[in-house]
Amino acid sequence: MDAIITLTSDFGEDSPYAAALKGVILAVNPQARLIDLSHSIPPQDIQHAAFFLEEAIPLFPKEALHVVVVDPGVGTERPILYVEVGGHRLIAPDNGCWTLLLGCAAEPPRVIRLEERRYWRQPVSKTFHGRDIMAPVAAHLSLGVPPEQLGPPAATWVTLKLPEPIIEVNRAVGSVVFIDHFGNLITNLREKDVATLGKRLVFRVGPVEVNRFVDAYARALAGEGVALYSSSGRLEFAVVQGNAAAKLDAKVGTQVEVISR
Amino acid sequence: MDAIITLTSDFGEDSPYAAALKGVILAVNPQARLIDLSHSIPPQDIQHAAFFLEEAIPLFPKEALHVVVVDPGVGTERPILYVEVGGHRLIAPDNGCWTLLLGCAAEPPRVIRLEERRYWRQPVSKTFHGRDIMAPVAAHLSLGVPPEQLGPPAATWVTLKLPEPIIEVNRAVGSVVFIDHFGNLITNLREKDVATLGKRLVFRVGPVEVNRFVDAYARALAGEGVALYSSSGRLEFAVVQGNAAAKLDAKVGTQVEVISR
Amino acid sequence: MDAIITLTSDFGEDSPYAAALKGVILAVNPQARLIDLSHSIPPQDIQHAAFFLEEAIPLFPKEALHVVVVDPGVGTERPILYVEVGGHRLIAPDNGCWTLLLGCAAEPPRVIRLEERRYWRQPVSKTFHGRDIMAPVAAHLSLGVPPEQLGPPAATWVTLKLPEPIIEVNRAVGSVVFIDHFGNLITNLREKDVATLGKRLVFRVGPVEVNRFVDAYARALAGEGVALYSSSGRLEFAVVQGNAAAKLDAKVGTQVEVISR
Repeated sequence: MDAIITLTSDFGEDSPYAAALKGVILAVNPQARLIDLSHSIPPQDIQHAAFFLEEAIPLFPKEALHVVVVDPGVGTERPILYVEVGGHRLIAPDNGCWTLLLGCAAEPPRVIRLEERRYWRQPVSKTFHGRDIMAPVAAHLSLGVPPEQLGPPAATWVTLKLPEPIIEVNRAVGSVVFIDHFGNLITNLREKDVATLGKRLVFRVGPVEVNRFVDAYARALAGEGVALYSSSGRLEFAVVQGNAAAKLDAKVGTQVEVISR
Repeated sequence: MDAIITLTSDFGEDSPYAAALKGVILAVNPQARLIDLSHSIPPQDIQHAAFFLEEAIPLFPKEALHVVVVDPGVGTERPILYVEVGGHRLIAPDNGCWTLLLGCAAEPPRVIRLEERRYWRQPVSKTFHGRDIMAPVAAHLSLGVPPEQLGPPAATWVTLKLPEPIIEVNRAVGSVVFIDHFGNLITNLREKDVATLGKRLVFRVGPVEVNRFVDAYARALAGEGVALYSSSGRLEFAVVQGNAAAKLDAKVGTQVEVISR
Repeated sequence: MDAIITLTSDFGEDSPYAAALKGVILAVNPQARLIDLSHSIPPQDIQHAAFFLEEAIPLFPKEALHVVVVDPGVGTERPILYVEVGGHRLIAPDNGCWTLLLGCAAEPPRVIRLEERRYWRQPVSKTFHGRDIMAPVAAHLSLGVPPEQLGPPAATWVTLKLPEPIIEVNRAVGSVVFIDHFGNLITNLREKDVATLGKRLVFRVGPVEVNRFVDAYARALAGEGVALYSSSGRLEFAVVQGNAAAKLDAKVGTQVEVISR
């Protein structure tokens, strides 16, 4: 089977840079099967990229190779990594964007620094390592180059620092960590954190009480604010057929609270 | 030839949910060839999805399988359907989004309710049936599972209710049903409805007269409002090198009128 | 290997027209491998398309065939062209969108007018030649139809007129020609134009001085305006972790100036 290479970036849909990645990969391996995950990660938003990858990557078959170009540090000495985590393979800058995947991995990751220049495109620019390093290395990997030829093992790497929720006996305090296209608010509270608080609960997003807990969006009326568990098991707030971020005036970082009554 | 599976959704370009569909499909059938139709259907806009599909699906070869995830009823008892209509095959929620395709089909559709859980991803969430039901079922179909194994035949289904135009001897009254990316206004009046009114016509969009009828955008001057037939044979209003929706203050539902002089 | 066909258009992500191109191509050649470059070229913006193609096309392998549908003249007598330039093959309207590629081609291009109707979709609309002419011709080419069967050679074609920079002994004056998704300002001044001015330079975007020259975005502080060379060797202005177009109040056409101190 021909190799699957997925692409995730913050280049935007109107930009030639995603097309550039595709051209470089196909120039090295014309048989590669390219899959766009998204090129609309908000510019340089490593945390958004991390949640995006946590939601999507575990669903892919292990044959896929995932190239992630969200790289505010491009042109500095930050390394670029080849990573095997939970059986999935990624190429990404060393900025923590892949590290939420550690949460579902049974074994420690294998991490290699891309330093072997013979797999790079020449000349290497200082502003577009996606095109000049990540894409060609991905293509060479897809042709069977063994990862150990790409550079030395890395013993350390940047880990994404996420706000940790506070779980107390009768209260859990967390925050919005991701807002999806519908305006739904995904939080850092997980189903297990909330389950321990019992059945009679008060939910708050910032100062606003959201008193309806449902198991699916369509259980409440249009316009109603609801709490529910997201498809990946996180506490989520939504407004039925509306936009919770706008209606509840919430953004990434807004505090959310669950209290036992 | 490897199976073609197309994807249409309202997930947005910045969302991990389209990537999730792709991961699940490739995990079941790594050979599937994925084609994005769009992930920018306006959120939960079934009518937009219906026009989108009417415009695109008939052009595809019959081998393609089309997965449509515009699903405001997710998590309720609304069925999910496998449909064969006009020789094309779709998987879509039972909300009417596919039913404009009935207009170009010579035979009644074959409709099956997806109920056979062994082709689903486990566990099935209440908020993301695209990932947990539609994607894996599509992948299994692409591997040759016969449709009758997916569930029982459906005798009824939701049909999209569209505003019907009023066609009189010297007048046709319709409405805008779709606005494209350029701001062009596509209506529910068809070429045949208008042709019966003769050659000397007055066109109105809401209260605004659009007196120039052309056969192509570039026949009029920049900024001029024109009426023409769309590439799919519908009466359309455009502003040359401009945005008709903005300039004529029109939206989906705005009345349009054609009058014999 | 199955043929690679890339697609570039101004249809927008929410439009069925890109999906229509895909359907038509796959109906003629179900084995074609479709690659989206972008469908978010700003509406009818030929100059944007030209810079987009200059950035992306040269990176692709020569086997790829590139279909470009940015076509404000659709429905008029403007020809549609098959072009071979620098070893790359395109199908595009004759509006100059491909002509920046002449800059990196050693030999004159081969240009053919698409006139042979047997490779077109019937009937041909006056508003969507992408679907009815360009897509089916691309699919037939990908099946091995020789280009000379598509129509007669063209001896002339429209060339994109770009603002030319003024290069003096101690000053270079150019303009912004492209703004990327990050708000970075790409200009028509090239590295060689600026290098002749020496090392002690003043940079201006409109009336604003940008005094920091760096080799990579991350060399300066967040919020700082910088000048640098883009990944394709053009003078570029950026605001580190910000949007230069917004912060410097610049758009395509804004004058930029480099002065020897």
